[in-house]
Amino acid sequence: MIQTKAYAAQTKETDLAPWTFERREVGPHDVQFDILFCGVCHSDLHQIKDEWGGSIFPMVPGHEIVGRVVKVGDHVKKFKVGDLAGTGCLVDSCRVCDNCKDGLEQYCTNGHSQTYNGYEQDHQTPTYGGYSNTIVVHEDFVLRISDKLDLASVAPLLCAGITTYSPLRHWNIGKGHKIAVVGLGGLGHMGVKFGVAFGAEVTVLSTSGKKEEDAKKLGAHHFVVTSDPEQMKAVAGTFDFILDTVSAEHDLNVYLGLLKTNGTHVCVGVPTKPAEIAAFSIIGGRKSLAGSMIGGLPETQEMLDFCAEHNIVSDIELIDMKDIHTAYDRMLKGDVRYRFVIDMATL
Amino acid sequence: MIQTKAYAAQTKETDLAPWTFERREVGPHDVQFDILFCGVCHSDLHQIKDEWGGSIFPMVPGHEIVGRVVKVGDHVKKFKVGDLAGTGCLVDSCRVCDNCKDGLEQYCTNGHSQTYNGYEQDHQTPTYGGYSNTIVVHEDFVLRISDKLDLASVAPLLCAGITTYSPLRHWNIGKGHKIAVVGLGGLGHMGVKFGVAFGAEVTVLSTSGKKEEDAKKLGAHHFVVTSDPEQMKAVAGTFDFILDTVSAEHDLNVYLGLLKTNGTHVCVGVPTKPAEIAAFSIIGGRKSLAGSMIGGLPETQEMLDFCAEHNIVSDIELIDMKDIHTAYDRMLKGDVRYRFVIDMATL
Repeated sequence: MIQTKAYAAQTKETDLAPWTFERREVGPHDVQFDILFCGVCHSDLHQIKDEWGGSIFPMVPGHEIVGRVVKVGDHVKKFKVGDLAGTGCLVDSCRVCDNCKDGLEQYCTNGHSQTYNGYEQDHQTPTYGGYSNTIVVHEDFVLRISDKLDLASVAPLLCAGITTYSPLRHWNIGKGHKIAVVGLGGLGHMGVKFGVAFGAEVTVLSTSGKKEEDAKKLGAHHFVVTSDPEQMKAVAGTFDFILDTVSAEHDLNVYLGLLKTNGTHVCVGVPTKPAEIAAFSIIGGRKSLAGSMIGGLPETQEMLDFCAEHNIVSDIELIDMKDIHTAYDRMLKGDVRYRFVIDMATL
Repeated sequence: MIQTKAYAAQTKETDLAPWTFERREVGPHDVQFDILFCGVCHSDLHQIKDEWGGSIFPMVPGHEIVGRVVKVGDHVKKFKVGDLAGTGCLVDSCRVCDNCKDGLEQYCTNGHSQTYNGYEQDHQTPTYGGYSNTIVVHEDFVLRISDKLDLASVAPLLCAGITTYSPLRHWNIGKGHKIAVVGLGGLGHMGVKFGVAFGAEVTVLSTSGKKEEDAKKLGAHHFVVTSDPEQMKAVAGTFDFILDTVSAEHDLNVYLGLLKTNGTHVCVGVPTKPAEIAAFSIIGGRKSLAGSMIGGLPETQEMLDFCAEHNIVSDIELIDMKDIHTAYDRMLKGDVRYRFVIDMATL
C-alpha cells in the first residue's frame, strides 16, 4: 500500500487537518502521479459540511488535480513516468451502461466513482481526493495535460473548466449567439472565456457592479448588474442561452425572462434548496431550464486540448495548504479571482 | 355592428349566463363565421374564476371554435361564404416582431390578441370568445377546416390538439422514441394520438388505473399508475420525452427521474403554483424542463391538415349550452372522455 499524506475532515463539524492514509498499490492499468496542484471547488466545502447529505468521513476533498506521473502499471499505454497528468471529478464508472459507452461517465447509470466522498466500483472502498501528495487512478480516468500551459492554472480546468465547456458545446453555442453568464466566480470566469473562444457575444450578469472591469478583461462584451431593474429590463428577451453558475439561492424566473423564444437556461451550480419555477416562465416562449454536470472523459480531454491550443487557463490565486480555511472564508464571500489552487508542495 | 348572442361571466363570482353584445362589422380582411361548435377548455374555467389574475369582464369564454363562413371582406382570399372555418386561441398579433415573422404568433413579443379575455391590437377593445353564435376574425387568424372529419370533434383540435402537436413536432418526436404522456384528459388524449401517429412508443402515466383500457384504445402502448412505486421504479430513466398535460399541482422531480440522459419534460398545463425543482433533478442526466404554449398559425393549419389526412379528431361529449356548469363540475373531477364540446345551436 502507498502511504499518503493529506488534509482531511474527520466529521462535518471539524476543520480540515493533516491525516495519513493508504492508497492501493499501482495495478496493471493504474497510473500513480504525485500531486503538484489541486484546485479548491465550492463543492469541496458543500461536502465537508455535508450540505448535500450523505457525506463519507474521513473526507479528503479535491477534484481538480494535476501532477507528474511516478509509476505506471504494466498494461498502461497512455502514460509513462515523468508525464504530466490530471484527474477531475471521476476516478471510475461502471463502463457498461449506455452513458458510459457514450463517454458520458458523469451520468453513469450504475453510479460512477467520485474522486472523493465516493466509493470505488466495489461500492465499499472510499475514495480520497486531491488535498494529498499522491494518487492512484485507472489510466482511463487520467487526463493528458499539455506542458504549454501554467500547470497550477490548469488544475481548475478539471472541474470549473469542463463544467462550463460541456454545456456550451452540448447546446452548440458559437457565432451568432447571444449568451449570458450568471455569476463571475470560478465557474463563471471560465464560462466567459469559453463563450468568447467559441465566438458568442457574452454578457456577464452579476449582483454587483464591482466585477465589470474584470469581466471585460476576461473578454465579456457586456456587463449587467442584476440588481438594477433598468439594466435588466434592457436585456429582457435577448439571450439565446444562459449559463448559470450560481450555487446560492436566486430566482430563476427572473433569468428565464431574459431568454429569447426557444432559449435555454442551464444550471451548473447546485443550490441546496429547490428552485421555484412558474409555469408561465417556461411556457411563454417555449423556454427550457436544463442542468449539466461536469463532462465525460472524452470531452474533458477535448477541453484540455482546446485550452492548450487556445492558451486558455483559469485565473488563480495560489495558496499554501495551511491557508485552506482562510481560502474557504474568502470563497464564501466571493472574494477570489477566480479560483484558489493549493500548492501541494506546502502539504 | 353585428348583434351577437353569447354566454358570459359578468364577474369572477357569477355563473355564466346569456348576454348580448356587438361584434365589429366585417372589414376588408375579415371573415365572419357562424359558430357551430365550441370546445370547453380547462383554461375557460381558470379565466372566468380569475385564477391566473388579470381577467377582463364581462367574459365570453371559448377558443376551440368551428363553424361556417357567412360573410367575407372584399380582400379576403382564403375563404368564401359556405366554407368551414375555425379559430383557436389567437385572433391577432403584432405581425412585425421576430416571433410573428417566424409564424410563432403565440409568442408575439408585443402581445398577441387572445380570442377572449384579451384585447384587439388597439389594446383597448376587448375580445369575446366562442360561447357565442358568430365571430369576426382577420382571415390570417382563421383556419381552414376539412369537411372529411366530424366537425364537433374537430373543435378541440384548435387548442387541445395544437397544444400537444406543437411540442411533439418541435422536439422531433417520432420512431425510436419512448415518450410518456402525463394525464389522460383533453390534452393528454390528443398527445397519445399524435405520439402514436408520429411513430413513438407511448406510455400513459396516470394517477389511477381506471383509464388503462381507454389509454390502450387511444393507441398507447403502455400504461403506468403513478401512485404505484413498483411501476414507477420500473420506468425510471427510460423516457426520451415526457409531455405533461396536468394543470393540478404535482411533483415534477418525480417525472424528471423517469427521463433518460438528455431527456426533456415539457409542460403544457399551467398549475397556479410554481413547481419546485431540485438542482440534482436536472443536473443529473443533463435533463431539460421546458414549456410550450399552443402553436402558431402555420403550425395549427399543418396540424389540422395532418388530422384530416390521418383521420385524427378529439373524443368528445357534445353538450347543450345550458349544461355548461355541469360540464365544468365534471371536468374538475376528470370525469370527461375527453373533451366537452358545446353544440352552439342550443345557445
